[in-house]
Amino acid sequence: MQISYTALKQFTAAAFDRAGLSAEDAGTGAEVLAMTDAWGVYTHGTKLLRGYLRRLKAGGLRAKERPVLAAEGLAWALVDGNSSLGLVTSVFAMQAAIRKARQCGIAYAGVRNSCHFGAAGYYAWLAAREGLIGLSMANDKPSVAAPGSRGAITGSNPIAYAVPAGNHRAILLDMSVATVAGGKVYAARTRGEKIPATWLVGGDGKPTTDPSGYPEVGALQPAAGHKGYGIALLIETLAGLLSGAAVTHSVGNWMWDDGTSPTHHGAAFIAVDTDAIMPASQFTRRVEAMVDEIHSAPRVEGVDRIYVPGEMEWERYDRAMKDGMQLPLDVVTSLQEAAGMVGLCFPNVAS
Amino acid sequence: MQISYTALKQFTAAAFDRAGLSAEDAGTGAEVLAMTDAWGVYTHGTKLLRGYLRRLKAGGLRAKERPVLAAEGLAWALVDGNSSLGLVTSVFAMQAAIRKARQCGIAYAGVRNSCHFGAAGYYAWLAAREGLIGLSMANDKPSVAAPGSRGAITGSNPIAYAVPAGNHRAILLDMSVATVAGGKVYAARTRGEKIPATWLVGGDGKPTTDPSGYPEVGALQPAAGHKGYGIALLIETLAGLLSGAAVTHSVGNWMWDDGTSPTHHGAAFIAVDTDAIMPASQFTRRVEAMVDEIHSAPRVEGVDRIYVPGEMEWERYDRAMKDGMQLPLDVVTSLQEAAGMVGLCFPNVAS
Repeated sequence: MQISYTALKQFTAAAFDRAGLSAEDAGTGAEVLAMTDAWGVYTHGTKLLRGYLRRLKAGGLRAKERPVLAAEGLAWALVDGNSSLGLVTSVFAMQAAIRKARQCGIAYAGVRNSCHFGAAGYYAWLAAREGLIGLSMANDKPSVAAPGSRGAITGSNPIAYAVPAGNHRAILLDMSVATVAGGKVYAARTRGEKIPATWLVGGDGKPTTDPSGYPEVGALQPAAGHKGYGIALLIETLAGLLSGAAVTHSVGNWMWDDGTSPTHHGAAFIAVDTDAIMPASQFTRRVEAMVDEIHSAPRVEGVDRIYVPGEMEWERYDRAMKDGMQLPLDVVTSLQEAAGMVGLCFPNVAS
Repeated sequence: MQISYTALKQFTAAAFDRAGLSAEDAGTGAEVLAMTDAWGVYTHGTKLLRGYLRRLKAGGLRAKERPVLAAEGLAWALVDGNSSLGLVTSVFAMQAAIRKARQCGIAYAGVRNSCHFGAAGYYAWLAAREGLIGLSMANDKPSVAAPGSRGAITGSNPIAYAVPAGNHRAILLDMSVATVAGGKVYAARTRGEKIPATWLVGGDGKPTTDPSGYPEVGALQPAAGHKGYGIALLIETLAGLLSGAAVTHSVGNWMWDDGTSPTHHGAAFIAVDTDAIMPASQFTRRVEAMVDEIHSAPRVEGVDRIYVPGEMEWERYDRAMKDGMQLPLDVVTSLQEAAGMVGLCFPNVAS
């Protein structure tokens, strides 16, 4: 289905509004999800609306609660999400990190009592949009193995960063610590296909090319083995241990739990005010030069270009803003179900 | 060769002393290298002494210079290494980050005019030893490809973190963004063996199992493809772009250049004072619980234990402190050559 960014965002905001969020919070949540779709990251955009509405209706997410600054210092803040929408809590926390980084050069905001926060990249980009370097990360219910484990040890623990890049679009990387997203494994299962031996471990903890048991059995493999596992624990430390959030197996499953209880996800946001450290124009000139150098580097035969992280997403974004988005069928179906949950029709907000 | 930690450190300090460093700086450099050996990371310990001495004698490293705080704010510092020993500059910078983190909760120290800094893990651990979370990273002459590139785009850009863990040893991860260290590829070449197709790209930029051209031709593959490449650019941003250091191909090759010119490496150090954010005892109890949970998780048949990052290194460290170290032959040879360069005999300091 073809839809404009504006229409998608309006529908999403209307749905959050029907679920009881304030107009401001509904708009914030809608922007996070619609922007993620505009980047072409359809797995983490408005497809998630249905799940969030389910929790809002069941009470595990609290529509009328708001995140608060539970504690703060010169260059840090602890945000208690009060089980409000994770997207709203995450924007609130990154804004706190940005504000404090402007005072101090760098700042950390840890988040507890949050929930699934959508795509990490959005919050990192919030900082880059304001001229700061942004980092964003969250923990999650374990789905990823560690070297030698039988079963999951850490969440897929997303991490993103964004760097303002002057006359280029912001550098923007958003990744999980797993080799691939669970959705790719599940899609192969649905199609009855084998998977590469680096994606999954089976119930015995050993690499398998058979996705047929996933997600009931087995766990994703950490990207680059002990490296992905190690980064997962750094994220667990900053997002979970230090924020006072739930950690590893205590985190709730936002999608499959019954929805009546908070999931207690943690998250962490770091902002670096480059302008405090080096004149912004000088910093961005240096970023531009590095990007230009990468663009002009020798390429493998048949390769048109070497991408800097985020460039594919920004090209999709530009197309989405110009021509609208071609929503995949699974997203459309999910949005239609979401609409039904709050008495709307998708895509007609005014129904 | 069997040698005690103390003897190895004393010899290394004596060699730095002969090369013109102050007693304090010689001791600092010696501790970084000997500690790295004690962790069993022999590729980045005292084996590097020879190369550092060569640059100290040639003038590219300046024995009598010292790092200085070139600029600072509440939660940040820029350190100019003045082309003094990278190990000394890095300790100086992490100490600045620790000091400022104690004031602000988190702090960043960027470094320019440094050189190769040995093992990133040492500096991260400096913070953890004082009860803070530490991160440490550096850029380097490019040796790692990007997806689609023919040739190297980024350095192997090491990154390390350490987390104080109460009654466990500090969690400690030290990794590069390449799939494997160049030394492993070179060792396979020396033995005439094939390598896995995920380690190297050849001169055409395509994966190869033939290491025979390396390092003259080809580049290492980034760990987990675009993920390792993306993390490399984050490190380049914090360690190179924001510190004012050289970036990518402008960084000198500390080992192969003629040694008379500075290499202008960059580095970045971040410290987080957990005690500012949450009582230290509460934080470390939470870390302990997570480590205990990982230790007791189900394992693959035949696997004795699931390691937390750093545990293997700490076990080697304990053995080294008790029984001394069994230095590999390549380290011994390198140390003997280093000794000859400054009129010493290895291992006898007093010769």
